[in-house]
Amino acid sequence: MSIRIGILGYGNLGRGVECAVKNNPDMELVAVFTRRNPDTVKILTENVPVYSVEEAPSKKDDIDVLILCGGSATDLPAQTPEYAKYFNVVDSFDTHAKIPEHFANVDKVAKENGNIGIISVGWDPGMFSISRMYGNAILNNGNDYTFWGKGVSQGHSDAIRRIEGVKDAKQYTIPVESALEAVRSGANPTLTTREKHTRECFVVAEDGADLERIEKEIKTMPNYFDQYDTTVYFISEEELKRDHSGIPHGGFVIRTGKTGWNNENNHVIEYSLKLDSNPEFTASVIVAYARAAFKMSKEGMSGCKTVFDVAPAYLSPQDGAELRAKFL
Amino acid sequence: MSIRIGILGYGNLGRGVECAVKNNPDMELVAVFTRRNPDTVKILTENVPVYSVEEAPSKKDDIDVLILCGGSATDLPAQTPEYAKYFNVVDSFDTHAKIPEHFANVDKVAKENGNIGIISVGWDPGMFSISRMYGNAILNNGNDYTFWGKGVSQGHSDAIRRIEGVKDAKQYTIPVESALEAVRSGANPTLTTREKHTRECFVVAEDGADLERIEKEIKTMPNYFDQYDTTVYFISEEELKRDHSGIPHGGFVIRTGKTGWNNENNHVIEYSLKLDSNPEFTASVIVAYARAAFKMSKEGMSGCKTVFDVAPAYLSPQDGAELRAKFL
Repeated sequence: MSIRIGILGYGNLGRGVECAVKNNPDMELVAVFTRRNPDTVKILTENVPVYSVEEAPSKKDDIDVLILCGGSATDLPAQTPEYAKYFNVVDSFDTHAKIPEHFANVDKVAKENGNIGIISVGWDPGMFSISRMYGNAILNNGNDYTFWGKGVSQGHSDAIRRIEGVKDAKQYTIPVESALEAVRSGANPTLTTREKHTRECFVVAEDGADLERIEKEIKTMPNYFDQYDTTVYFISEEELKRDHSGIPHGGFVIRTGKTGWNNENNHVIEYSLKLDSNPEFTASVIVAYARAAFKMSKEGMSGCKTVFDVAPAYLSPQDGAELRAKFL
Repeated sequence: MSIRIGILGYGNLGRGVECAVKNNPDMELVAVFTRRNPDTVKILTENVPVYSVEEAPSKKDDIDVLILCGGSATDLPAQTPEYAKYFNVVDSFDTHAKIPEHFANVDKVAKENGNIGIISVGWDPGMFSISRMYGNAILNNGNDYTFWGKGVSQGHSDAIRRIEGVKDAKQYTIPVESALEAVRSGANPTLTTREKHTRECFVVAEDGADLERIEKEIKTMPNYFDQYDTTVYFISEEELKRDHSGIPHGGFVIRTGKTGWNNENNHVIEYSLKLDSNPEFTASVIVAYARAAFKMSKEGMSGCKTVFDVAPAYLSPQDGAELRAKFL
C-alpha cells in the first residue's frame, strides 16, 4: 500500500514535490490544495484532483502526509499548526529566529491531535543542519564553516528587481575558492562576510535607464550587497532567459577539529551539495521526511520533530535488515 | 553527572577513545579492561584503574557504557554479545558479511538484559554508511560511489610485511583524482577497481634481500594488489619511521542522482573526510554514539542498534532547544 501524499501550495516547491513523489514508487499523490481557483491550476500528474484549501480538512482520512509548500514569511507560521490538526505534516520553514516559536506551536497541536509535524526540512535548514550537528558531536573541539553556492538567491534577485529601472534580474551567490581551501587546510581561519562569498548580478534594465545609478544602488544596498564584492552585468532579456533561467544552488558545510591527548591531530569533515534545481532537491528531501512522518506516526509517535529527531532509517523505504546489508 | 565510560581493549583505538573522553566534558573514564597483565598496561589518564577483563562483570554498576575496542576478526563477535549482558556497549565491528549474524547475537542478549548495543560505529562502517543511506533516501534515482584515502591500510601493510625479506612496510590507498572528478561531474561513470584507487607501498627490506622479487610479489598479490596500479618504494627504516609513522585516512562518499518530471536535473551529494589519525577519529565517532547509547538506555530502549537507528540528536550533549537554536 502506498503512502498517500497531499500537497498544499503549488509553486516551484509544490511541483518539485510532485516530481519527487512520482520518483518514489512507495508513494502516491492523491490531492493538491491551492488558494487559487482550483480550475486555473494545471498539475503534471494525471487524474489527481486539485482542490481549494478550504476542502483540505474534509480529506483527512484520504491523506497520510500533507506537505506544506508555502513560504516561511506568512504562510507556514499559520498553515503548519493549522493543518497539524488534521494531518501528519512536513514543512520547510526557514526563518531561523522564529523556529522556537514555530516548533512550540506545531508541537502543541500535533500532540493534541496525535499527528507528527516535521518542520524546517530541506537542505539548509535540513541536510546542512544535520551535517553541522553530527560534525559538532564528533569533533567537539573545532570550528564550523558553511558556504553557499554557486547558486541563485531568490531574495537577492527580488531585491534587485525592486530597484527603479530594473526589468528583471538574477543574483548568484558564489563561495570564494581560496577561503574554502583555507578552511579545508585545517588552518581554522576567521573569515569576514566579504572573504567568504562574492555576488554576481545579471540585470535587465528598462530602455533608457541610468545603468550607473542602478549598479551603484545594487552595490551599496545595506545587508544584501554592501558587505560583499559584487559584480553587475547588464544583459538583454533574451540572454537572461537563455542563460539564467535555471534555479541551481548548493554549498559546503565544513567541520574542522582536533583530537589527541594534546590536540595534535587535525580532521576535516566536509558535506557538499551541487544542485541543478534547488526546489526539486529540497522537495526530494521533504518527501523522504514525509515517509519518516508516516512511519513514525504508524509507530504511535506524535508532536513536532526536526531533522535532528528523526533516525536515518525512517527516511528509507527499506527495512533495517536491507539497510544494514546494502549501506552499512 | 558525567557519563561513566569503560574501555575494553587498550590498543590504538582504546587510546583514541581515552583521548575522546578527555575532550568531552560530559564524560568520564572510570576503568580500562585488558586481556594483558593489568600491571603492564600504562594508560594516559591519571587515577583511572586498569583491570583484567575477568573483572568487568563485577563493575557493571559503575559504568554507563562499555566501549569495545577489540578487532572484528575474533574479538568482537564474542565480546559484544558477552558484555551486552552487563553493559550498554558500542563496538566498531566491520566485517560486512557477518553483520546480520552479529546484529542478531547482540540484539538477543541486549534485549534480554535491557541494554543498548550499538554496533559497527566509526566512519566506514559509520558516518560513510549514514551518508550512503541519506543519499539514497533523498535521490532514489541515482548512483553511489565510495572512495577511500589517501590513507594507510593496515591490512595491506600487514600483507606486505608477511613477504619474505620484508622488515617493515606501510601501504597507502589513494583515490584516483580523475575518477573523482568524473563522478562529481554527474557523468555516472562505471569504474573498475583499477580506475578508482592506486596503491603506494613504502617497504623496508632486510639486508641483502632480493628487491625485484619482493616488488613482484607485492604487485601480483591476489586481491590485495593485482587489480591495482601499485608503486613500490624501498626506503630505509629511518625514513619509514620519520615520514610514515602516522595513521592518516579519509575518503569520499558521493551520491549522484536525477530529479524532475523527465529526470532533467542532476544533483551531487558529497561527504568527505580528511583524517590525521584514523583511530582517533573513529574513537570520536564511537564516543558520540556511547552518549547516544546512554541517552537511549535512560529512555528505556534496549536491543541492538546501528547508526541508522539513532536519531542525530542523541549524539549531542545539548538538548533539543539548544540544537535547534545552534545548528538548524
